[in-house]
Amino acid sequence: MNSLASIKIGIIGATGAVGVETLKLLSEINHPLDNIFLFASERSVGKRIKYKNSEIEILETSDENLKKIDVGFISVSSEVSELLAPKIVSNGGIVIDDGSAFRMKKDVPLVVPEINQQDLDSHLGIISIPNCTTTPLVMVVDAINQMSTVEKVVVSTYQAVSGTGKEAVLELENQQNGNVETKIYDYQIANNVFPHVDDFLEDGFTKEEHKMINETRKILHDNNIEIIPTCVRVPVKVGHSESLCLTLKDDISINKINETFRKYQGIKLLDNKSVTPYPMPLLSEGKKDVFVGRVRKSINNAREINLWLSCDNLIKGAALNALQILE
Amino acid sequence: MNSLASIKIGIIGATGAVGVETLKLLSEINHPLDNIFLFASERSVGKRIKYKNSEIEILETSDENLKKIDVGFISVSSEVSELLAPKIVSNGGIVIDDGSAFRMKKDVPLVVPEINQQDLDSHLGIISIPNCTTTPLVMVVDAINQMSTVEKVVVSTYQAVSGTGKEAVLELENQQNGNVETKIYDYQIANNVFPHVDDFLEDGFTKEEHKMINETRKILHDNNIEIIPTCVRVPVKVGHSESLCLTLKDDISINKINETFRKYQGIKLLDNKSVTPYPMPLLSEGKKDVFVGRVRKSINNAREINLWLSCDNLIKGAALNALQILE
Repeated sequence: MNSLASIKIGIIGATGAVGVETLKLLSEINHPLDNIFLFASERSVGKRIKYKNSEIEILETSDENLKKIDVGFISVSSEVSELLAPKIVSNGGIVIDDGSAFRMKKDVPLVVPEINQQDLDSHLGIISIPNCTTTPLVMVVDAINQMSTVEKVVVSTYQAVSGTGKEAVLELENQQNGNVETKIYDYQIANNVFPHVDDFLEDGFTKEEHKMINETRKILHDNNIEIIPTCVRVPVKVGHSESLCLTLKDDISINKINETFRKYQGIKLLDNKSVTPYPMPLLSEGKKDVFVGRVRKSINNAREINLWLSCDNLIKGAALNALQILE
Repeated sequence: MNSLASIKIGIIGATGAVGVETLKLLSEINHPLDNIFLFASERSVGKRIKYKNSEIEILETSDENLKKIDVGFISVSSEVSELLAPKIVSNGGIVIDDGSAFRMKKDVPLVVPEINQQDLDSHLGIISIPNCTTTPLVMVVDAINQMSTVEKVVVSTYQAVSGTGKEAVLELENQQNGNVETKIYDYQIANNVFPHVDDFLEDGFTKEEHKMINETRKILHDNNIEIIPTCVRVPVKVGHSESLCLTLKDDISINKINETFRKYQGIKLLDNKSVTPYPMPLLSEGKKDVFVGRVRKSINNAREINLWLSCDNLIKGAALNALQILE
């Protein structure tokens, strides 16, 4: 029996891409059926979701139902999250929120357990987890920080459509089958890429790019680190990848950096000696680790490290991180 | 009648992805049928290729046949190019080669006409055109160089499978239709990306990445510019994209940079005022321009410019560049 078995866990957004992965993880640790409460939007209420050899009915997010849970994992729109999270907290419950509604609020810890677990001590009921592009980035930076301060990161992302939601995955599949209708995205995503994730702001960066900058700084308690992101959507169903160029304070050898990655909880280094010589989204799907590879120095600058990473945006990028916080 | 009409042009690799585009461009300028000679590998010899309302037969690359041409556009493997190019030159012909066989040789000009046309003066029969990832990069750098020296570029690419060849496009299509067999690439490319274009070298960079570094330096006659590339294959059929972070010697305003892009021959700037607010490979397909957008400064460094570009890797990346040289 797992240490969480007696905790009544609610999944708010249970039919969404992240909700489904969260339920899978609860199933892996054999969380008791009676202590799982699934919530979703009105049109799903009453539907039954498979859980092990049984089923769980989807509840409406009434005040009464929300009172049943000790902890609520929320992965819905910011608007809905802002409405429901305070209710759970006022009932004495804890919220672990996957959205951007609370992340940058001063009294809300923003946590990746491998990095800043200690920030959990000060929560007032709501705990946020970072955006799915921030989590793998900040883990890599934290690992390298153990040897030398990372001063700057230029990062270009290769983001899967499941980050947008299940409907976007369906849209990609339909387009691959010849139905080029666009509903979720402004443009066709099959056989295409676009440098556009979330809304554009006045400075030319997108909200998604600002999340990477601000969340990284908050998690690391480092307001000096420069993050220069370009967020790009690619026709991949699951698994975000990132191309990183990191500037370190010192000249650290690749061997030493690789050694640190090998020891870092939650990172899996792939190199020439691995069966797969580099990370790929397709191979990260369903896995808990952040896969890191192609670690190399810039040719003219010994303080610059380049690398490539892939990770399942729904698992370590969201569901797993939330569950690790609870643990 | 076009100014090239009397020139006997040979396309060596006529059935390949670039060869097909070259023939299309000749058709656009109404090059006379009698002055086009198509060559391909043995198994295609004798086949007839549509040209306007007629057809052209594919010839074998015999010494006799090669003597018929004044200029040969070569887009085949380096091995075949090394064999055939000297033959054409010894007949008094000129070679414009799309491969990597001759690019870095001292007495072979490597030319993007918008940038270093003057290098053509010194050729000894063979002229090379750059790799399809170098051409758009070096055009952007050249445009900015008019205002302030570009000292450094961190670049991550999003490269279409047609860069590998027609068989790779077929492989992607088959995989999208559920046949996940891999023959051309080591891994499935549909719903996947991999940070691997061409062979790996000892320093951890690939040959493709070294091409971007070395070719850029040669074209710009600037051995100091630092290029830090990560080359990535994405499931796109046509159109290479690149995410760039450029460090300039001076602080130049975005308005001024955009103005320069607007005036630069061969670059098309997309911004908020455009119908499409940013470049995408799908929209660059079949177009001659390098599309540039999302031009913005790094938040903490006024000398750093970030931007995104897409261009048809077969046209400006190859066929068009070759034809422009001839003109």
